[in-house]
Amino acid sequence: MIESAKVAVVGVGNNTSALVQGLNFYRRTGSLVGVHRAELAGLGVGDVDVVAAFAISDAKVGRDLHEAILLPPNNFRLDADLPPSGVTVQRGLVDATEVERVAQALKGAEVLLYSAPSGRPETARAYAEAALLAGVAFVNTTSDGVAREPSMLERFEAAGLPLLGDDLASQFGSSVVHHALLRLIEERGLTLVSSYQVNLGGTEDFRNLVENPNTKQQSKANAVGSDKVQMAPLGYLPHLGSQKIAHLNVEAQGWGGTAVSLDVRLKVHDPSGAAGVNIDLVRVAAAALRSGRGGYLPEVATLLKSPPGTAI
Amino acid sequence: MIESAKVAVVGVGNNTSALVQGLNFYRRTGSLVGVHRAELAGLGVGDVDVVAAFAISDAKVGRDLHEAILLPPNNFRLDADLPPSGVTVQRGLVDATEVERVAQALKGAEVLLYSAPSGRPETARAYAEAALLAGVAFVNTTSDGVAREPSMLERFEAAGLPLLGDDLASQFGSSVVHHALLRLIEERGLTLVSSYQVNLGGTEDFRNLVENPNTKQQSKANAVGSDKVQMAPLGYLPHLGSQKIAHLNVEAQGWGGTAVSLDVRLKVHDPSGAAGVNIDLVRVAAAALRSGRGGYLPEVATLLKSPPGTAI
Amino acid sequence: MIESAKVAVVGVGNNTSALVQGLNFYRRTGSLVGVHRAELAGLGVGDVDVVAAFAISDAKVGRDLHEAILLPPNNFRLDADLPPSGVTVQRGLVDATEVERVAQALKGAEVLLYSAPSGRPETARAYAEAALLAGVAFVNTTSDGVAREPSMLERFEAAGLPLLGDDLASQFGSSVVHHALLRLIEERGLTLVSSYQVNLGGTEDFRNLVENPNTKQQSKANAVGSDKVQMAPLGYLPHLGSQKIAHLNVEAQGWGGTAVSLDVRLKVHDPSGAAGVNIDLVRVAAAALRSGRGGYLPEVATLLKSPPGTAI
Amino acid sequence: MIESAKVAVVGVGNNTSALVQGLNFYRRTGSLVGVHRAELAGLGVGDVDVVAAFAISDAKVGRDLHEAILLPPNNFRLDADLPPSGVTVQRGLVDATEVERVAQALKGAEVLLYSAPSGRPETARAYAEAALLAGVAFVNTTSDGVAREPSMLERFEAAGLPLLGDDLASQFGSSVVHHALLRLIEERGLTLVSSYQVNLGGTEDFRNLVENPNTKQQSKANAVGSDKVQMAPLGYLPHLGSQKIAHLNVEAQGWGGTAVSLDVRLKVHDPSGAAGVNIDLVRVAAAALRSGRGGYLPEVATLLKSPPGTAI
Repeated sequence: MIESAKVAVVGVGNNTSALVQGLNFYRRTGSLVGVHRAELAGLGVGDVDVVAAFAISDAKVGRDLHEAILLPPNNFRLDADLPPSGVTVQRGLVDATEVERVAQALKGAEVLLYSAPSGRPETARAYAEAALLAGVAFVNTTSDGVAREPSMLERFEAAGLPLLGDDLASQFGSSVVHHALLRLIEERGLTLVSSYQVNLGGTEDFRNLVENPNTKQQSKANAVGSDKVQMAPLGYLPHLGSQKIAHLNVEAQGWGGTAVSLDVRLKVHDPSGAAGVNIDLVRVAAAALRSGRGGYLPEVATLLKSPPGTAI
Repeated sequence: MIESAKVAVVGVGNNTSALVQGLNFYRRTGSLVGVHRAELAGLGVGDVDVVAAFAISDAKVGRDLHEAILLPPNNFRLDADLPPSGVTVQRGLVDATEVERVAQALKGAEVLLYSAPSGRPETARAYAEAALLAGVAFVNTTSDGVAREPSMLERFEAAGLPLLGDDLASQFGSSVVHHALLRLIEERGLTLVSSYQVNLGGTEDFRNLVENPNTKQQSKANAVGSDKVQMAPLGYLPHLGSQKIAHLNVEAQGWGGTAVSLDVRLKVHDPSGAAGVNIDLVRVAAAALRSGRGGYLPEVATLLKSPPGTAI
Repeated sequence: MIESAKVAVVGVGNNTSALVQGLNFYRRTGSLVGVHRAELAGLGVGDVDVVAAFAISDAKVGRDLHEAILLPPNNFRLDADLPPSGVTVQRGLVDATEVERVAQALKGAEVLLYSAPSGRPETARAYAEAALLAGVAFVNTTSDGVAREPSMLERFEAAGLPLLGDDLASQFGSSVVHHALLRLIEERGLTLVSSYQVNLGGTEDFRNLVENPNTKQQSKANAVGSDKVQMAPLGYLPHLGSQKIAHLNVEAQGWGGTAVSLDVRLKVHDPSGAAGVNIDLVRVAAAALRSGRGGYLPEVATLLKSPPGTAI
Repeated sequence: MIESAKVAVVGVGNNTSALVQGLNFYRRTGSLVGVHRAELAGLGVGDVDVVAAFAISDAKVGRDLHEAILLPPNNFRLDADLPPSGVTVQRGLVDATEVERVAQALKGAEVLLYSAPSGRPETARAYAEAALLAGVAFVNTTSDGVAREPSMLERFEAAGLPLLGDDLASQFGSSVVHHALLRLIEERGLTLVSSYQVNLGGTEDFRNLVENPNTKQQSKANAVGSDKVQMAPLGYLPHLGSQKIAHLNVEAQGWGGTAVSLDVRLKVHDPSGAAGVNIDLVRVAAAALRSGRGGYLPEVATLLKSPPGTAI
């Protein structure tokens, strides 16, 4: 019998909620709908246990994880009725003096999945220190530079601990689709004239991005990579709930310079796109830890926006 | 100095018109906008000369090619003012008794580009016979089964004459885009729920398809290849002129079964999509003829919908 | 206390199903969501009882109405669990010899709602005869000419029986939206260049239209009324279920002849659009019957596509 | 013979450019394409002469109007070749001390069309003072409060001078279309669930709005008027040039609470939308001046977003 991957999560927002609710959904139904890899590194989609969780909101700390993930501003819903998880949300660290406490709390975990909001690099690095101290793998899903920092990478490698990041690429989001269309334009020999992307969302994560757009938007622009592609400002529209809507446009020229236009409307649930990738990152990380492979693992390259080698 | 490819065309419709107007545009401007391959098999995009043309419409036979391509129902326009081409449109063959006459008229040509409406397989094969007789390569852009017919392929191979077909894949059309999106859905691990494609166009070619949809639509459904993908009936809307508009929809499921929707509107000029591929087919065919390579040439696989091996 | 309108229905397809399921929904929840007129002619949205139903499918005849409306090919679902209705579906008439039998069965009804597929004018008229004989109002929701036939109208008027029809205008469908956009273009002084409408649906009703398009499409084209507006062929896409999707495009010119483009995608549930109008037609008909107003009633003009005065 | 309306313009941006180029287009071609009212207040669409122009950009001051309107950042183009206009752009006022100079320069004008960027209410009012002094009508197309200021209105009324404003409603823009759709939803009895509007543009005017969004966006939100309608942030995308693209979405519920979705993409040329309304405002103003009607004129209500009575 396979031993499930033991995962501790930092951040009890929508993305963690989608991961946890999805794990319950797949175990309960046996379905594999929407699952990218039924088995990865020997682990099935249900072979992941969340064994610890950290949050900073007073409302969430001290609550059972299955209650905490449904508290506002979280608004992602899959399964209405979840049994208690048995995992109590612990208080997350606020500064580097608490690294040791967190490391203690990681006992029994194999992977620390860092899924807090982007934009607090010091916090991200402090959790990475805790992971090093506790001997667990670290996965950074935020755009804060951790895994692409050469010195950090070296230390995880030396310790035989996987370090995966930074910035998860959604399973299916606007960057993925935009990329695919621009690549197609190029493959078929059209000349790109101009392109734009508008992203609208209703999650707390989205609100954070709107109020603090720099890091993530830059990462996104890098991800698409052409000066003919323009990103409209993000729009936080609360009534969208956990949905994200993107409007993409591509204008190009074909034979004889004739016009080619592509207009796309994409509708996804943002937290699902994150969970669908996190499930793979944590499985790869746990399996690598077990077999003693430390540092970055190239098999996760398509799951990340800013892997090692990308500018910070 | 490179010797231009000498091409004879069958059919003086919009697709031939787009090829001829485009050749003039590229030679006149030196531009490479919308050109897939600036050089192919040693030939530049302007290194193609149309040396003969066949049509069956009384209005076109006997006219200079540069006049004939602008006559209704043709409605594709790139360059308003073209100098006389010096090529007079000849009467096309109506039955197999005229194969020899056509073969005579192919003197000086290297490639016969068959660009008549789909749906007349006997005519297509008669022109292929003429090409064999005259010792020129044959390119079949229609969905009629010629190049995927094993006996025909064998005879061209034996004669050292290239035979390329069947059914050209537009440089950038609804099949290309739909394919790319469905492939992306699969690559990212989403579960396809349903998909549709609606095609609207205003060319004579489109009118023919609407009135005689079987062959081409089947070829198109094959091209996409899933029973979850449904094709709406083609719509002939004259006011679209040489434009084609496609509406594509893809419904899928991601992590936890959550909904993912993609809606696409594509606007292209159909004849440009054909010409952008024909320019490559004729260059490959001419170069292969010169170097004695007969039969089918695998390097054109991405330019065709029904290459040899596809069911007729 | 208000006495509910007593309605007999002909046709136990999706539209009748939506009416019946909706009546249960509104009575059970007390909600008024999506209701056009909370009260009409003194009757609330729940003050309608279906007291008889006629169908020709062997599968439906003899079944309780609440079971019959959920049988395939019906595919509209609102409320999963309905209690038995107490109304058994009766065999509908096949020819005019059965008018008397149907008239007998209408005892106790005030309104006969004719909601069978369009395209059988003789059947529609036979039911109208039964209504006359039984002294009940008649509502024709099909495009078959009944209520706009002067002689029929005269006879209902003389008998003091309301006769409402023909061809219901959906509460919110592609014609309604297209009309509104074209009217807006005109009001704002733009010059219409061209426009198209594509309709895709997955109901049995839609399949009937696709296979027998003439009557309805003509009615639709009349409804929009400009030769610059083109209707693409209807597309029957089974996976859409009870949804209808319409793609509308409007191209116009503004100041100085500059281009204005509008592209619309509309998604509705077709049976809901019908039920939302039928609820008003039957209330008006019942109230008019009670107060002795016979013939056509002008207050329903916006609910019909082909009222009296329209060409048959 | 009709005497043309004599108009002085403040601001030589895209909107003035579109007005001037359009006047030339209509006079040259005799066309009425895209013209809302061929005749208004006795004046044809060509019966408007621009007799003076004010700007503050050094590049434009001192140039012939027909040159100045084509200078960057202006990017609207209709007619490439315009003959000299004979009107030299004058330096606009910077503060209230220059009111008298401007009033002198208005000699011969009947209407002062204020078409500078929104957001400088003091400047707008200074020009209104100049108009009062010179005895010419004043039209304020910006969102700055001038014409809805009771004291200003009183003074124009007393002087027998028309005062029209504030904030022109584009001939056909996203507000107009959004309004029409929301009204339709209501008319047909659907329940509005949510709605959004995204506006993208490439003009200098748009860039100003993005950098200083408050006034105009508020005016826009007022214009739509429902808390279920959310406005995404404006996106300045330079490659759009003088085009504006709006994405609108409306989610509603019909019979039984079933979902109704409307998605709209609108593409217009922003300066055309302004010019198509300005042509009417100046004709009404000139005619009213001639017949001694002062103050606000109710016949222009549909051409304005914030007429008198709207909150400042």
